[in-house]
Amino acid sequence: MSSPLRLGIAGLGTVGVGVVKIVQNQAALLAARSNREVVISAVSARSKSKNRGVDLSAYAWEDDPVNLASRDDIDVFVELIGGEDGPAKSSVQAAIAAGKHVVTANKALLAHHGQILAETAEEAGLSLRFEAAVAGGIPVIKALSEGLAGNKINRVMGVMNGTCNYILTRMENEGLGYNVLFAEADKLGYLEADPNLDVGGIDAGHKLALLASIAFGTKVNFADVELEGIQRVTITDIEQARDMGYRVKLLGVAQLTGRGLEQRMQPCLVPARSPLGQLENATNMVVVEGDAVGQIVLRGAGAGEGPTASAVMGDVMDIARGISTPTFGQPARMLAEIQPAKAAAPAAFYLRLSLKDAPGALAKIASSLGDAGVSIDRMRQYSHDDAAAPMVIVTHKTTRDTLDHALDLIRGTNVCLQDPVTIRIEDV
Amino acid sequence: MSSPLRLGIAGLGTVGVGVVKIVQNQAALLAARSNREVVISAVSARSKSKNRGVDLSAYAWEDDPVNLASRDDIDVFVELIGGEDGPAKSSVQAAIAAGKHVVTANKALLAHHGQILAETAEEAGLSLRFEAAVAGGIPVIKALSEGLAGNKINRVMGVMNGTCNYILTRMENEGLGYNVLFAEADKLGYLEADPNLDVGGIDAGHKLALLASIAFGTKVNFADVELEGIQRVTITDIEQARDMGYRVKLLGVAQLTGRGLEQRMQPCLVPARSPLGQLENATNMVVVEGDAVGQIVLRGAGAGEGPTASAVMGDVMDIARGISTPTFGQPARMLAEIQPAKAAAPAAFYLRLSLKDAPGALAKIASSLGDAGVSIDRMRQYSHDDAAAPMVIVTHKTTRDTLDHALDLIRGTNVCLQDPVTIRIEDV
Repeated sequence: MSSPLRLGIAGLGTVGVGVVKIVQNQAALLAARSNREVVISAVSARSKSKNRGVDLSAYAWEDDPVNLASRDDIDVFVELIGGEDGPAKSSVQAAIAAGKHVVTANKALLAHHGQILAETAEEAGLSLRFEAAVAGGIPVIKALSEGLAGNKINRVMGVMNGTCNYILTRMENEGLGYNVLFAEADKLGYLEADPNLDVGGIDAGHKLALLASIAFGTKVNFADVELEGIQRVTITDIEQARDMGYRVKLLGVAQLTGRGLEQRMQPCLVPARSPLGQLENATNMVVVEGDAVGQIVLRGAGAGEGPTASAVMGDVMDIARGISTPTFGQPARMLAEIQPAKAAAPAAFYLRLSLKDAPGALAKIASSLGDAGVSIDRMRQYSHDDAAAPMVIVTHKTTRDTLDHALDLIRGTNVCLQDPVTIRIEDV
Repeated sequence: MSSPLRLGIAGLGTVGVGVVKIVQNQAALLAARSNREVVISAVSARSKSKNRGVDLSAYAWEDDPVNLASRDDIDVFVELIGGEDGPAKSSVQAAIAAGKHVVTANKALLAHHGQILAETAEEAGLSLRFEAAVAGGIPVIKALSEGLAGNKINRVMGVMNGTCNYILTRMENEGLGYNVLFAEADKLGYLEADPNLDVGGIDAGHKLALLASIAFGTKVNFADVELEGIQRVTITDIEQARDMGYRVKLLGVAQLTGRGLEQRMQPCLVPARSPLGQLENATNMVVVEGDAVGQIVLRGAGAGEGPTASAVMGDVMDIARGISTPTFGQPARMLAEIQPAKAAAPAAFYLRLSLKDAPGALAKIASSLGDAGVSIDRMRQYSHDDAAAPMVIVTHKTTRDTLDHALDLIRGTNVCLQDPVTIRIEDV
């Protein structure tokens, strides 16, 4: 058996405690699988005195994670502090400078600084791994960068923020409005300190940018992810979408098109009977489409102590076994700069209109769509008691530009009582 | 860049041709991802003259795969011949003896000889990998042995024979009987030369035995997989199960119980709304349950040129990158011999009875179940025109032994016109 692999763990919140528990409780299993003991040498967190329900007395304590990162008695620095800058970033930099492998669950850090951190780690012959940063316990980074390495990837998609999917599922199942559920989630502590990270799609957008880099061999480009949160999703849209056979999901999609790399994180409609449409509550799902393999769907818990710690330990076990893959699947210095493309791929769209109840209104809508070159797949007008006639249209596939032109024409007719609502329908 | 990784491919059927296409068409991508060229040096198949739609002229030809396996100009022997013995086995043995890594899609070979082949390969410091042998394009071997390596695995399940799931789906959707669909599948060439490999559950049983070995660190034990095919599944059971909220699947389940290792491949009922219940047609699904990660679901194509070649190339790319994991996740010589346990875990059961339409018949059934200690969760009696009253019972959880005792008591009452049909209901 080789010498023990020694961990230094920075951050002892839910995930950090989960990692400690696995190392303590599964020591024999880990050693059998990696032919090497996995041990913890030292830990660091904000409060030394807090009772975390695990015995930390055998580990050295460091108040400063930067000091932890460069200790002589660790081989792997496990960064579970969080945040795109501050101590997370400085301690990861210190770890690499001191010749330590790094395992992190920090999507914000990698979405913003992954390129330079990966280059530095690879130049030093070190691993920088982040399975836990994307879709919690689902081993999607490994599947995409290793298991599917023989594929040209066509598209990668995912529902990767459990809180958003939980809110959308309850809106659909219980008919409660977004604001009510947001307030409840906030009260229960389900939201990040800045809730916009969750409901604004930023957290999921970080994850999408990381997946896109591996899928397409391109530099992480979070700045060009088209981001839209779930704040504007209404019960009306959820119900009318369901009536047409769809469900609303905060869906991330990355694909290479002739115009460049498209990265979108936004509410989309997906067929209710598809795996993505059937996904309920806080569960995550990632869908990878490769030229050889076709569609692979991966589903599991996207957060929580056990699932996230499982992903951290997957990376730790790879390092224990001597498995080394570049952070983004190919050497970071070889990753391509690629033109971002805004919603280039054509799609069908859901349009919800609120029409004046007057003769000729429908004809004007139909003409506007036709003049812009948007054709109608299905249309429903709902019965109504007031002056507004609710209408839902599902278009045939068109580009976002063409649709925007049609919307301008529709607005010009003055037959709508509210601005039209549009939601992209993703082919899944 | 390192020196090229040179493949020798034995077997040029669908999958072999798929591998050749990936190596030829994605050369740049493979090199970028592994920092190494991946090339084919030599190939072998039964007929040299057959037109396979790919250009093989640049590769040396060997009539005998054993000769191919030991050529000086190959680093990896790719075995796509199939069959548990014969040239597949002898050529893999020859490859290992000659110091070559082996990648195979051959579940029968590994289910029968995996232990000794893995030991031999590992003693020589060689990789023997088989991602393509289980669930086609789904990277489940990698997920289980690497991504989830921090978990104690509680249970692994899977629908892993596409032909069976296709037949069952069509039985449900079209109301066609098993025999009709079997004849059609046979005519279309969807079945193995020995169709019992498919419909008898043997092929899927091989896969389950391989997954169980990795999941539980035990020696592959195919001989003790409890095997039952789909031949006896009737339309009546499919329809009545659906009526109770279930679907019939040929489901493999492996789990460690207090009494030993349980491995079953048999028709089961699963909730219609679960991911397994929603799986249609030839798609495969593997469900892994770990103590930390919870439930992970992996779904994708289980067969076919592209998906299977994708899995082969995943293994090839790992070898190109210098990634080496023991065949079954931990060193083969360390794998445990474990007691097989026959259906030890308790379950609910579906019982279909055909009762004599006579006073007291139902009371006798109820007493028999009660006397044996089996309690009833739900029961339905269907209207009928003839002397047989069809009845379906869903029991609460019980053991197979207790149920068998109840069935003996029921048989003793002489109120059944046919022997009761029982199908296990798997909690998923």
